[in-house]
Amino acid sequence: MPKNRQMLLDNRPQGEASASNFKLVETDTPALQEGQVLVRHHYLSLDPYMRGRMNESKSYAASQALGEVMIGGTVGEVVESRHPDYAVGNHVVGMGGWQEYSVVNANEPGMMRKVDTSRVPLSAYLGAVGMPGVTAYYGLVHIIDPKPGQTVTVTAASGAVGSAYAALAKARGCRVVGIAGGPDKCRYAEQELGFDACLDYRAYNSDVYALAKALKEVCPDGIDGHFENVGGWIMDAIMLRANAFSRIALCGMIAGYDGQPIPMANPALMLINRMRVEGFIVSEHMQVWPAALKELGELVATGKLRARESIAQGLESAPDAFLGMLKGQNFGKQLVKLI
Amino acid sequence: MPKNRQMLLDNRPQGEASASNFKLVETDTPALQEGQVLVRHHYLSLDPYMRGRMNESKSYAASQALGEVMIGGTVGEVVESRHPDYAVGNHVVGMGGWQEYSVVNANEPGMMRKVDTSRVPLSAYLGAVGMPGVTAYYGLVHIIDPKPGQTVTVTAASGAVGSAYAALAKARGCRVVGIAGGPDKCRYAEQELGFDACLDYRAYNSDVYALAKALKEVCPDGIDGHFENVGGWIMDAIMLRANAFSRIALCGMIAGYDGQPIPMANPALMLINRMRVEGFIVSEHMQVWPAALKELGELVATGKLRARESIAQGLESAPDAFLGMLKGQNFGKQLVKLI
Repeated sequence: MPKNRQMLLDNRPQGEASASNFKLVETDTPALQEGQVLVRHHYLSLDPYMRGRMNESKSYAASQALGEVMIGGTVGEVVESRHPDYAVGNHVVGMGGWQEYSVVNANEPGMMRKVDTSRVPLSAYLGAVGMPGVTAYYGLVHIIDPKPGQTVTVTAASGAVGSAYAALAKARGCRVVGIAGGPDKCRYAEQELGFDACLDYRAYNSDVYALAKALKEVCPDGIDGHFENVGGWIMDAIMLRANAFSRIALCGMIAGYDGQPIPMANPALMLINRMRVEGFIVSEHMQVWPAALKELGELVATGKLRARESIAQGLESAPDAFLGMLKGQNFGKQLVKLI
Repeated sequence: MPKNRQMLLDNRPQGEASASNFKLVETDTPALQEGQVLVRHHYLSLDPYMRGRMNESKSYAASQALGEVMIGGTVGEVVESRHPDYAVGNHVVGMGGWQEYSVVNANEPGMMRKVDTSRVPLSAYLGAVGMPGVTAYYGLVHIIDPKPGQTVTVTAASGAVGSAYAALAKARGCRVVGIAGGPDKCRYAEQELGFDACLDYRAYNSDVYALAKALKEVCPDGIDGHFENVGGWIMDAIMLRANAFSRIALCGMIAGYDGQPIPMANPALMLINRMRVEGFIVSEHMQVWPAALKELGELVATGKLRARESIAQGLESAPDAFLGMLKGQNFGKQLVKLI
């Protein structure tokens, strides 16, 4: 029975989240019952949606309970098994949470799946070939549904979702333009991720019209589809360049998490341009996962999608890594390495 | 050759539109060429979209040219014909504009169609069985697509679109709740149009939370679909009551026409509730017109849709009637009687 370390949600943020909202505890891993598997986590995924779960208020999913292990995606290996389908040494992906080990009821559907690490590295199953990748896929393929030659855009371009979005969009013959924070992320997006262009929003000082003007240069035919990870003034600028019948897949409004709603400056553009704006959570569209994971796995295996990772070491580093990610301090998919 | 009187757009509004933007002129009706028909207009339709056309700026259709007859839907009768499909006395609906007569090239598709006035009054082809009715149909049936028992709402409830919306929603087994300006319109909506409830927004003094609270009482199961004719704070209140996976059909943003964009207070609700918001113009969806007109014609013929009309007399009254409609002074479909 190895010792387990767990990161709990200790109290809810008042406004901005802080490290004091979390609490590290040590426990024993329990003895397995029939049908259970003990997984040792290699990597924990940190994702913006977790911030929403920390609030008591209505968010796009149930609140994270106080005093319980923070929710989160994990990859690892089976270290003990009382289920015939899982053997010691199998690599698995699941929702193990912010802890070093988890006990999984392997008979419950959707709790865990085995993954093949011969062509795709284990950590990629938390990013490009996991929830962020499928998120990009759902928004691009099922909401934006672009035609070859159309221009599609994405905010947080150098992140896990943006990386997958670029590869998926290029595979569909689109022009793909990103928006990211800082020249390093933009250079990386253009040179490594396949973006045709990437704008550094920090260069525009929250000036909607200045960013819209810059967008016009890199999107000379306007914007046919947009994937929104941020919200606020950047989305206002995107809307000024949106074409007739354009679509916005609304995935994140990170700027609004800390309390005050951030208005949309000119919603009449949705009418003027006959736009469709659709919010979604990828976990509510499980039917698309198999096709999405197949395509994303191929893109990674063939080197067409080389997503960057920011890796923090050790469970104790998770809160700071998470808070930094919310401020855009990560570069690519934020992970915590637990072994 | 009868004399024709025409209302031209003389100059563009600076901010609010006024009667001085229009100019009444008298001309001769020209001699017909082969394939042409001379129509005497009985009624002219006045609609909010016309305000958008008066601007030079980007709107959801081409600008109305200066010095030309204002665009508009008309019903009338054929008084002279050089086309084999049209005989003197036929009733027709078309886009004759703000004038007493029009010459129609009857070979051009979509310019004009004959209508049957045996079961449906002629003027209804400009309202319930015309563009406003089909507008309600498209938004309700093709965007909102409600299931029986769901709750759907509409602003400008007592108007031409709202009237048709209520009848179409009741025919689909929905609870339908309207929002209108003033107790008379609300009473009419509830007593004559079949609304299950109608709220007078004027009673809430632009207080989003007060209106949202009132909406909770009349929409105890939340709002599954909303048809927006107005925009602004009323839509903000609706969004506070919107259910998961709800849809908003965005048809009018009358509050924003006079210049300044009106923000949406909390666009993150579109994500939190996984909403779909879609702007549309009914003229871009001609494929739905036949089915829509068939259902709407039956609803009118069988007395299930009894839409009220505000009728101004004479072409010279059109500008004031139009400006009053933009301020909500009409009661039901605004028409101008030209004979």
